[in-house]
Amino acid sequence: MVRFELLHEDTSGTKARRGRLHTPHGPVETPIFMPVGTVGSVKGVGPDDLLTLDAQIILGNTYHLMLRPGEALVGEMGGLHRFVSWNRPMLTDSGGFQVFSLSEKRKITEEGAAFQSHLDGSRHFLTPERSIDIQETLGADVIMAFDECPPSTENRAYLEASLARTTRWLHRCVKAWSRERSSLFGIVQGGLHEDLRKRHAEEVCAVDLPGYALGGYSVGEAPEAMHDGVAYSAPLLPRDKPRYLMGVGTPVDLVTCVEHGVDMFDCVLPTRCARNGLLFTSEGKVVIRNAAYARDNRPVDPACSCYTCRNFSRAYLRHLFAAQELLAMRLNTIHNLHYFLGLMAEVRRAVAEDRFATFAREFRARAKAQEAERTRGR
Amino acid sequence: MVRFELLHEDTSGTKARRGRLHTPHGPVETPIFMPVGTVGSVKGVGPDDLLTLDAQIILGNTYHLMLRPGEALVGEMGGLHRFVSWNRPMLTDSGGFQVFSLSEKRKITEEGAAFQSHLDGSRHFLTPERSIDIQETLGADVIMAFDECPPSTENRAYLEASLARTTRWLHRCVKAWSRERSSLFGIVQGGLHEDLRKRHAEEVCAVDLPGYALGGYSVGEAPEAMHDGVAYSAPLLPRDKPRYLMGVGTPVDLVTCVEHGVDMFDCVLPTRCARNGLLFTSEGKVVIRNAAYARDNRPVDPACSCYTCRNFSRAYLRHLFAAQELLAMRLNTIHNLHYFLGLMAEVRRAVAEDRFATFAREFRARAKAQEAERTRGR
Repeated sequence: MVRFELLHEDTSGTKARRGRLHTPHGPVETPIFMPVGTVGSVKGVGPDDLLTLDAQIILGNTYHLMLRPGEALVGEMGGLHRFVSWNRPMLTDSGGFQVFSLSEKRKITEEGAAFQSHLDGSRHFLTPERSIDIQETLGADVIMAFDECPPSTENRAYLEASLARTTRWLHRCVKAWSRERSSLFGIVQGGLHEDLRKRHAEEVCAVDLPGYALGGYSVGEAPEAMHDGVAYSAPLLPRDKPRYLMGVGTPVDLVTCVEHGVDMFDCVLPTRCARNGLLFTSEGKVVIRNAAYARDNRPVDPACSCYTCRNFSRAYLRHLFAAQELLAMRLNTIHNLHYFLGLMAEVRRAVAEDRFATFAREFRARAKAQEAERTRGR
Repeated sequence: MVRFELLHEDTSGTKARRGRLHTPHGPVETPIFMPVGTVGSVKGVGPDDLLTLDAQIILGNTYHLMLRPGEALVGEMGGLHRFVSWNRPMLTDSGGFQVFSLSEKRKITEEGAAFQSHLDGSRHFLTPERSIDIQETLGADVIMAFDECPPSTENRAYLEASLARTTRWLHRCVKAWSRERSSLFGIVQGGLHEDLRKRHAEEVCAVDLPGYALGGYSVGEAPEAMHDGVAYSAPLLPRDKPRYLMGVGTPVDLVTCVEHGVDMFDCVLPTRCARNGLLFTSEGKVVIRNAAYARDNRPVDPACSCYTCRNFSRAYLRHLFAAQELLAMRLNTIHNLHYFLGLMAEVRRAVAEDRFATFAREFRARAKAQEAERTRGR
């Protein structure tokens, strides 16, 4: 079972926390960003790159892995850790979010979610029991409750019915959970409605679990609305358990939500942006295909110590991207993950040293100025 | 300037040689296989992977680099070594072969070759002087003479005229060559005509150069015809200079042509096959997408010590390939290059230990048996 150790709470005026999640595959220092390994690989990099980057924990995806290659196969091959050759902590989500965001012709009943694969249209049925069974077969250190993540445009009556069902599903997940290798986290939904968030948090946190998550954020709302929502919801979760904000976010999102007391994050942003040639740097965003970089012999980020920045120029990265060379994907991904993981290391230091309020304020101001500069199209 | 040191000649009944090519970026142990870095990157892997694989020398491509990003840009960025972050020896070809195999609407005159880019149809004109200028700007350790590589289907009159022109072009290359950083190799053409090969070898080798190459093989003829041709042509090249067989080939081709006295090889085969999921192993070829490997927990090659085989199963590699994950390309490429480079290390040992005749005979017999087994579709 995982165990959360709350090491320190910021005294500079924020709700930021410095913690450590002990897992069967070693500790995770929080606040942490978790790279996403959707189909059994963090896109663009290998486990060797992730070790060099000192990634502490990565994600796997129940929805994707049940469809391809199938959880039974992964189980036969010794479980997800062994299959993908990753000996550090892993977390799998429940498939709930992907059923609602990716699949076709889904139908929700009390029993579960019937849906068609986005790959080949094949029919599947995911229930709380089946999601837990799949996740325990994959064998991640942290597994997630099966929930519904309804569109924020749904009317209030639907949302209330959905939340009540997600709570009933949580109880079924808990009953199905073997409590052996994997630790179950509950998920609080409720969109941007504070009263619904509060009610659902009470229902979910009434179940004693090793950790709790906030779902249903960063699904199309404005960043400010999400930040306000998390500011309200995060403190609803128990102080002595890890708080995981699912699917978030940008560097500013991470810093801001740490301020509100979040400990864990995951997002495809750094890896997906890397594959599209958008690089995060201490000087702001770099769109590597820009002609301005054609003869730019500087590294992407002169302040960065990643493999990419230590060895290659912007001119070379632009050339690789323009020529659609595979190496472009890997070098860009290494850089972006290094930026996100390095940012979280800075965040942890600032929290530990009781200067997180200043850190967060200056970080946001710098990001805002850089983005204004960039979009002015210098 | 590069300098070839002939260390040993096999005494077991073959023409195989063990040598060392000294270059400004360090020595190359021959016989050697050179991975191809067409557009400034060996497709699928990074320089870090190539160092781990102990690749001793890699290729760059004049035709591709003049079109994108342009040799002037590479020169401004400090030359090809620095641009691609490779501090070991490099070789560039002259663009001659690609003009004839890739470009559209080419027109050959005494002056040079006018052609349209395969990328955007833009018009270019490559001459012996321009090819040498581009290659010296790129700054590889070994550069190649600009030649015509006519289709083997051309009539004899055309071939004779072409060879005479390639000889005149060689003299123009030599005149244009600065003799500073890069060492020029001449190229002998002549298709499968022994008398033309002989005449052209005499013309080319009459020019004192640091090395010589055989061009125009492996362009569609049967492997046996190529082997016979090389058996005839390789000994026409000076004994005390490196002999480079361009664009060859399969593992059996390499072993067989080393037997005929060749020292250097390059080919896209291991990298291209890797991207198509065809893996070379000590047990024969593995088509990784085959359903037979879906639940195969063994490494691709149990006898292999590469990063891929030390860490991943056939089942995982098949899954990555089926899911079109980028990591599939890198892991497959690492494995295939390790196989080719490891084979050449074995070749060098067998030559040094005067047992190359046996080594080559057994290697071919094993390859033949494995291929029969594989195509029987067990």
